[in-house]
Amino acid sequence: MTDLAKALASAADEVESALDSVLSMDGAPDRQIYEAMRYTTLGGGKRLRPFLVIESARLFDVPKISALRTGAALELIHCYSLVHDDLPAMDDDDLRRGKPTVHKQFDEATAILAGDGLLTLAFEVVSDPATHPDADIRAALVLALARAAGVRGMVGGQMIDLEAETKTLNLAEITQLQKLKTGALIGFGCEAGAMLGRAPDDARAALRRYADTLGLAFQIADDLLDVEGNVEEMGKAVQKDADAGKATFVSLLGIDGARTKANALVDEAVGHLSAFDERADLLRQTARFVVDRRN
Amino acid sequence: MTDLAKALASAADEVESALDSVLSMDGAPDRQIYEAMRYTTLGGGKRLRPFLVIESARLFDVPKISALRTGAALELIHCYSLVHDDLPAMDDDDLRRGKPTVHKQFDEATAILAGDGLLTLAFEVVSDPATHPDADIRAALVLALARAAGVRGMVGGQMIDLEAETKTLNLAEITQLQKLKTGALIGFGCEAGAMLGRAPDDARAALRRYADTLGLAFQIADDLLDVEGNVEEMGKAVQKDADAGKATFVSLLGIDGARTKANALVDEAVGHLSAFDERADLLRQTARFVVDRRN
Repeated sequence: MTDLAKALASAADEVESALDSVLSMDGAPDRQIYEAMRYTTLGGGKRLRPFLVIESARLFDVPKISALRTGAALELIHCYSLVHDDLPAMDDDDLRRGKPTVHKQFDEATAILAGDGLLTLAFEVVSDPATHPDADIRAALVLALARAAGVRGMVGGQMIDLEAETKTLNLAEITQLQKLKTGALIGFGCEAGAMLGRAPDDARAALRRYADTLGLAFQIADDLLDVEGNVEEMGKAVQKDADAGKATFVSLLGIDGARTKANALVDEAVGHLSAFDERADLLRQTARFVVDRRN
Repeated sequence: MTDLAKALASAADEVESALDSVLSMDGAPDRQIYEAMRYTTLGGGKRLRPFLVIESARLFDVPKISALRTGAALELIHCYSLVHDDLPAMDDDDLRRGKPTVHKQFDEATAILAGDGLLTLAFEVVSDPATHPDADIRAALVLALARAAGVRGMVGGQMIDLEAETKTLNLAEITQLQKLKTGALIGFGCEAGAMLGRAPDDARAALRRYADTLGLAFQIADDLLDVEGNVEEMGKAVQKDADAGKATFVSLLGIDGARTKANALVDEAVGHLSAFDERADLLRQTARFVVDRRN
């Protein structure tokens, strides 16, 4: 097991505990919606986004609890977006992380409300003094997270993605779509550590550039996995984009061209971390990992 | 026109401007989702929740912009909840405020994403320094709003409401359902003014008691309107609960009993404001209004 694999597994365990804690059912007025929220959030996922928060926070000696709770909030947003994205009116997926999607396991109404509940809970977690004692940091995190997740970020990207089913996007448009749909949350993950640690502007900007490059590499790798992966390893349907005739980095650049581009982005991402010491090594390895992963 | 009617109309105009401003399409990466968000948010509604923020803020000399932006955020949450509630998998409504619902005017996917965008935007608005210069107040407002809107508040109430289609609730359960589904946001509306104005604990607690009583009166009046109102005045389908065989305050108390209860709650709500001077007069009149309104 590589250092990164060990660190990812260890962080995933800690994030799981944090998520389990914020999704406590104690005194919940309704059980089913909590069950759906816990079903979709706990027990799976690479937890890559929280890992980015934890590792960027490490650069600035941020207390672990702050990074974990901020990472957990980010993961809640990621999970809600998957629940809504899987709905019949959206991507209509039956399988996620190898399990039935929420609307298959429960029903559509529960999936809509569970997604709403997860999204709302993310802001409750970040704004809670348990996340950071300083209110100015909490308020800034809420603002940055809302911008990353909203119509000028992830939700806007999802909307463009839906519209892409009826028109063919070019490379610039696909890149913009990716930047919003997956890049915005990854960007928040890396910047959050800097915000929690009151990092200097240049350090925060470097992390943002790293995140933007990483996010693009991540999406190209996703498109490659959609073509080259199989349903057992991925735990979800594959070849969906190709079957839908949607433009992807692979359809626009070809398999070899996409892989070459992804590798170049790994080098570029690592380059953005040049000002950091060895504490950034896991972030450097993460850039390679997102391109080489099998699911 | 009564003082209250004038004040409501004037506040609605100001809230409309605030909503128009936070829903600015300048530089939006996608037009359609903004159009859907603006379609459902602008140009209608009593704006009762923002009015409660404005009037509770008035008691503590809060700058108008703070109350307006907080009220606008609260209205965004109210509007998102209606968009998701109207979806086919939920209440399946075609008409809202006399217009086609979002999924009828656009499509289901757009309605899901527009709702997600409105919910997220609410937290962006509250956490923005433009809402209040003090970060501790912004962070506290985010936390309170997230709790009111989430699974231990409004979303939890919506889930119980869905489940009520397959089981008959008693009076205690209906009251609990109402407290979550509509009471939580009304409670935030009244407490927000106290939070913005750093009001003493007892003043804030009195406003909370007023809000809880008002919210219950509001819901009983809603149930009465569902039975006695007509689709033209209401701008939405009526008799839905009765047709669905769902228990309501009217089915449990009878029309006369429900009206008697609502009137008693008006007196009780006004009583909770006894420590405030004439600046609370519009809040006092509001208690009467929510029971006497025709839509």
